[in-house]
Amino acid sequence: MARVKVFVYPKKGVLDPQGKTVESALHTLGYKKASNVRIGKYIEMELPDGDNKKMVDEMCRKLLVNSVIEDYHFEVAA
Amino acid sequence: MARVKVFVYPKKGVLDPQGKTVESALHTLGYKKASNVRIGKYIEMELPDGDNKKMVDEMCRKLLVNSVIEDYHFEVAA
Repeated sequence: MARVKVFVYPKKGVLDPQGKTVESALHTLGYKKASNVRIGKYIEMELPDGDNKKMVDEMCRKLLVNSVIEDYHFEVAA
Repeated sequence: MARVKVFVYPKKGVLDPQGKTVESALHTLGYKKASNVRIGKYIEMELPDGDNKKMVDEMCRKLLVNSVIEDYHFEVAA
């Protein structure tokens, strides 16, 4: 089984209200130096062994990622 | 600036309805072999250089992670 990890995150320049909220919560808790907090998705899945990269990229473009506002990268580990 | 990446995901054994939904959507799209899809959060932030690991761990336990149902790990890169 190949273990796939997909990381999806807001594009640079796209507002991330969830990140802003967490950032101000961190400041309130005393972690004043935390900056540029951005929140995305971390998707794990299993696929049969083999060359899965093209398929995973397709999955990202078709379903997992909104390419208007999000960027992504992924890792495939045996 | 140190770049921090935090990965938060549902614990083993905890139901992940969002993951199940995405899994069945992938099957509908023809990717029948995708299994064990789990969806978590991917949080990026910046902190001043220095030994931040203890602080990031504290942030996770206090705010970013619900330790009843979620596990996490993080990376601090210069």
